[in-house]
Amino acid sequence: MEYTVAQKIIKAHLVKGEMITDTEIAIKIDQTLTQDSTGTMAYLQFEAMGIDKVQTKKSVAYIDHNILQTGPENADDHLYIQTVAKKHGIYFSKPGNGICHQVHLERFGVPGETLLGSDSHTPTGGGIGMLAIGAGGLDVAVAMGGGEYYITMPKIVKVNLSGKLSPWVAAKDIILEVLRRLTVKGGVNKIFEYAGDGLKTLSVPDRATITNMGAELGATTSIFPSDDITYKFLKAQHREEDFVELKADDGAVYDETVEIDLSKIEPLVACPHSPDKVVLVSSLKDIKVDQVLIGSCTNSSYVDMMKVSKILLGKNIPEDMSLAIAPGSKQVLNMLSKNGGLGDMIDAGARILESACGPCIGMGQAPSTGAVSLRTFNRNFKGRSGTTSANVYIVSPEVAVASALKGYITDPRELGEAVKVDMPEEFVINDNLIISPAEDGKDIIVKRGPNIKPFPKAKELIGNVTGKILTKLGDNITTDDIMPSNAKLLPFRSNIPYLAEFCLTPSDAEFPAKAKKYDGGIIVAGSNYGQGSSREHAALAPLYLGVKVVLTKSFARIHKANLINNAIIPLVFNDVKDYEDIDMMDELVIEDAANQIKKGLVIVKNITKGSEYKTLPEVTQREKEMLIHGGLINLMKNKKKVGV
Amino acid sequence: MEYTVAQKIIKAHLVKGEMITDTEIAIKIDQTLTQDSTGTMAYLQFEAMGIDKVQTKKSVAYIDHNILQTGPENADDHLYIQTVAKKHGIYFSKPGNGICHQVHLERFGVPGETLLGSDSHTPTGGGIGMLAIGAGGLDVAVAMGGGEYYITMPKIVKVNLSGKLSPWVAAKDIILEVLRRLTVKGGVNKIFEYAGDGLKTLSVPDRATITNMGAELGATTSIFPSDDITYKFLKAQHREEDFVELKADDGAVYDETVEIDLSKIEPLVACPHSPDKVVLVSSLKDIKVDQVLIGSCTNSSYVDMMKVSKILLGKNIPEDMSLAIAPGSKQVLNMLSKNGGLGDMIDAGARILESACGPCIGMGQAPSTGAVSLRTFNRNFKGRSGTTSANVYIVSPEVAVASALKGYITDPRELGEAVKVDMPEEFVINDNLIISPAEDGKDIIVKRGPNIKPFPKAKELIGNVTGKILTKLGDNITTDDIMPSNAKLLPFRSNIPYLAEFCLTPSDAEFPAKAKKYDGGIIVAGSNYGQGSSREHAALAPLYLGVKVVLTKSFARIHKANLINNAIIPLVFNDVKDYEDIDMMDELVIEDAANQIKKGLVIVKNITKGSEYKTLPEVTQREKEMLIHGGLINLMKNKKKVGV
Repeated sequence: MEYTVAQKIIKAHLVKGEMITDTEIAIKIDQTLTQDSTGTMAYLQFEAMGIDKVQTKKSVAYIDHNILQTGPENADDHLYIQTVAKKHGIYFSKPGNGICHQVHLERFGVPGETLLGSDSHTPTGGGIGMLAIGAGGLDVAVAMGGGEYYITMPKIVKVNLSGKLSPWVAAKDIILEVLRRLTVKGGVNKIFEYAGDGLKTLSVPDRATITNMGAELGATTSIFPSDDITYKFLKAQHREEDFVELKADDGAVYDETVEIDLSKIEPLVACPHSPDKVVLVSSLKDIKVDQVLIGSCTNSSYVDMMKVSKILLGKNIPEDMSLAIAPGSKQVLNMLSKNGGLGDMIDAGARILESACGPCIGMGQAPSTGAVSLRTFNRNFKGRSGTTSANVYIVSPEVAVASALKGYITDPRELGEAVKVDMPEEFVINDNLIISPAEDGKDIIVKRGPNIKPFPKAKELIGNVTGKILTKLGDNITTDDIMPSNAKLLPFRSNIPYLAEFCLTPSDAEFPAKAKKYDGGIIVAGSNYGQGSSREHAALAPLYLGVKVVLTKSFARIHKANLINNAIIPLVFNDVKDYEDIDMMDELVIEDAANQIKKGLVIVKNITKGSEYKTLPEVTQREKEMLIHGGLINLMKNKKKVGV
Repeated sequence: MEYTVAQKIIKAHLVKGEMITDTEIAIKIDQTLTQDSTGTMAYLQFEAMGIDKVQTKKSVAYIDHNILQTGPENADDHLYIQTVAKKHGIYFSKPGNGICHQVHLERFGVPGETLLGSDSHTPTGGGIGMLAIGAGGLDVAVAMGGGEYYITMPKIVKVNLSGKLSPWVAAKDIILEVLRRLTVKGGVNKIFEYAGDGLKTLSVPDRATITNMGAELGATTSIFPSDDITYKFLKAQHREEDFVELKADDGAVYDETVEIDLSKIEPLVACPHSPDKVVLVSSLKDIKVDQVLIGSCTNSSYVDMMKVSKILLGKNIPEDMSLAIAPGSKQVLNMLSKNGGLGDMIDAGARILESACGPCIGMGQAPSTGAVSLRTFNRNFKGRSGTTSANVYIVSPEVAVASALKGYITDPRELGEAVKVDMPEEFVINDNLIISPAEDGKDIIVKRGPNIKPFPKAKELIGNVTGKILTKLGDNITTDDIMPSNAKLLPFRSNIPYLAEFCLTPSDAEFPAKAKKYDGGIIVAGSNYGQGSSREHAALAPLYLGVKVVLTKSFARIHKANLINNAIIPLVFNDVKDYEDIDMMDELVIEDAANQIKKGLVIVKNITKGSEYKTLPEVTQREKEMLIHGGLINLMKNKKKVGV
């Protein structure tokens, strides 16, 4: 049988199920990564599993998000992650060492291995032939504990590259072209596998730019073969021993094919406010630009930066232009500081920012009201920059720097002959900001700042479940309604007790108080409950407040999974009219709940009204186990105990 | 008659009064500087004066404070300052160009000239023989308009330096020694003039470190002579034409003398939480350090940075140390990036921050809970770092970097032979982040973001003043009570209408609502009203709310001056018992107020109670004029009209 690159990796890691499209499979995870905004909770969850040492080949904890520390919360989180990593066998990348995806590519990624990361741009690792997938913190915690990762077997889309990019056209333009054709919904439940003659013209950073922004397609992941170009990159990183050749078999079957002739691509730009609103740069050339930002996990490699530096050499930005550049890692910054590239940027008038996510996640550089900002980043959602009225365009470094010099959106082909930057034969290697885990973590003390509160733990499901209806909600309640997220609340992502005070308050200001007064209870809601962001905290806060059951007309998929992970029972009315029978403060009981869930039909008795409702748990066998064991963490712990 | 350096400059700029200690004098201001956290309001005030072009020799607007922009407010303020500067003849130093005091020293300061800056560390300019004074924004606005600056003629203290610093002992240790001897109150109404044989051993950056931190003595300013060392510094900046020799006359008379033998100074450290809690570094050597920060307007010069770089060369910081370095200006960063110094810092594991005030003003790098942080900055007040529980120590770059390498507070003499860094013969000059003002600003449009609201304007005092008592307060109300300042409110320093919603709310939550309902009115309070910070906004917010009179048992000095500048009449009870007679919502009237103020006795009639109170304005002739003309800005405008 012939396989594609992705299929080969999945096959080699398949733990459960078969590689049949749209069926559930489980794969073994070789590597994990976390960043700090999701990492604190992931490690609290890992600790809750009671496992001494991570079971992966390599796990790395990065600090790159919460770098604008104006109070102790962020530094406390960083210190917690540093010590918990040391104790449990996890590498720790200190603040200043760079953006997780860039550093992981440089120093840790291995072709042919699986990588699960608690960041949506984890697929960057596909640039060196990893099967790299973004997931929630708890999924990553489970993977660190040796648990398999469940996905729906995706369709494999072949992106066949032919020809060669024209001068001034960049890898960024390839992924923008894919986004233009397929839109941000075009990748759902698909893996994009790049192939064809054009491959040999693309460097590892080029490939990583493409797999990184595959996330904007909604794809499961994107992947390149591992070839001679991959080998040279790893060798230049002194990691040739990590190289494995990986290519699709002749005759491998793909579910779909996308043909791209690289020679036909022109410089592109994604217009406000979506990465798929892609047009030709040349069609926008009269738009005045106020700010240009270069960096982020998409375009902050050494080659990206050196191109920018060479284009800036000997020139000056206009006086009403703000140009800021953030090299992606300490390695990149260091090389630029040693070869003069950084000085050339500074000479031209660029501000140099720390190697971190920075403005890409709204951490600094929020533009002025109504400003036009060109960014080499991956997302331009409205307001993400920190300025709701700003118009953010996504472009290649070449377009960014050409526009920074001219003051208007500029096709870089106007600049004359294209600059050429070769991949270095050897990168500057200095890993002194990466801390190795302890050989034996027994004596390592995990430091928990006062803002880091214990993670709420679900309990095994025994006997009857009873509770009052704490709130009765309508249709389309979002995870933003359940657990609001904003600048005021973000530093408290590791403090569920604090966050819980805001749980469901946009819909019902008294909800947290009622939950506390009655020692938890039951939520009843209309259809599509939990739509929107995949925010895990929208399950953790209710869990903390003692919510045992959520009874609705229907659930949004990811939120239901989060509830199950945390052993909050999601039930759906068999007859939606029963919703009308229930009132706030009614007392409900589910007798012998575990047994009813096992059977797949749950009778909910309304003691107050004297009525009863047929409800459906709508869960898989695996999910039933989770609800009964007390959530995913307890399931993991129990399996551990019985040696599964 | 023989004069000291300071006296020579004062004499050359004296506009009113005589150089008699403790009497009011007025001096002409040659140069001004502003930074962005005080600048927006200063330029709004300048605009209100209706003057087309600044009347100074040189005025410079710097952006260095509000660099952590997470919303549009900061960028909007920066754009306002940039355009208002262009229009009115002011140089504009863009974000990223560096810290105002460092850049001003490098590119603008002139020996023998006067400099007024809306930042308390403006005395840094004394390092090249400027008479450089920190002041409120309105004072700087008035100086830009050509108005004189009023001070009490200070005492002149001679600091006589003899001998030579030992290896590893720094200029920072000299000013720490002065602080150890004189305390943070020891400089009030004094100018510290450095003299003696030791001068010739101190470079311009050394001198600037000392004059910078003279602010911590509470001094009016500090100053060094302008000599051959000054000449060489200016020449290396390609500014030899700005050099003027300035030295004290033989036989000049000083009010006090402090003798310092440089050879006897050892490495010093200011302990938490005050810059005058100074002890020997060697006495603290077992204290573990979590964070070391190098930079700020005190210690971010090229020589400081190169010393740090050389000490770090080839070494690594310990894994639980966080070291961050912020070069003081684009010039410094650029030179470090060109000569390899930056690479050596990065190699050792340092994080490189943008050239700005940064963590010195709590903008980033807040340490973890209870952490020990060593900083080369100038202030270590409790909580200033962003972390109330942190212990911040103030040290020289040498002590900082030695401690960063060892992980404990370390006397740098333990490191062996001292590194040596010469002043460069020539600095890298590239002023492309400094924008010159327009030749003719007529057509320049000032850009005002939606957060920049018009500045409230006082009115000429005509006829009777009437109003209700809006609130009745006790003793010791602080400017923090009157106008709270915190992370939530700081981005709104240019939005008085917004800030006014919080005016006096810590004492009286209903105050803003009452002031609006009754169209302004009168505040009555106990003694020491307006103590604490010099915050001008504590007068601007009441002015916006229509407060006409503040009637108290006594005022704190600076707040009273701010009220007068804004034409809010400060009155003091002749008989403090009258305070008891007044109740909230009483209706008061002052008949023919201007005339009564002129006479120096004001009868306040309580219409509600049918009683009346003798009160005193307690103001100088100049201040009476201000109250009658409608504040300092109107006084300036009126003078302009009549050609004074």
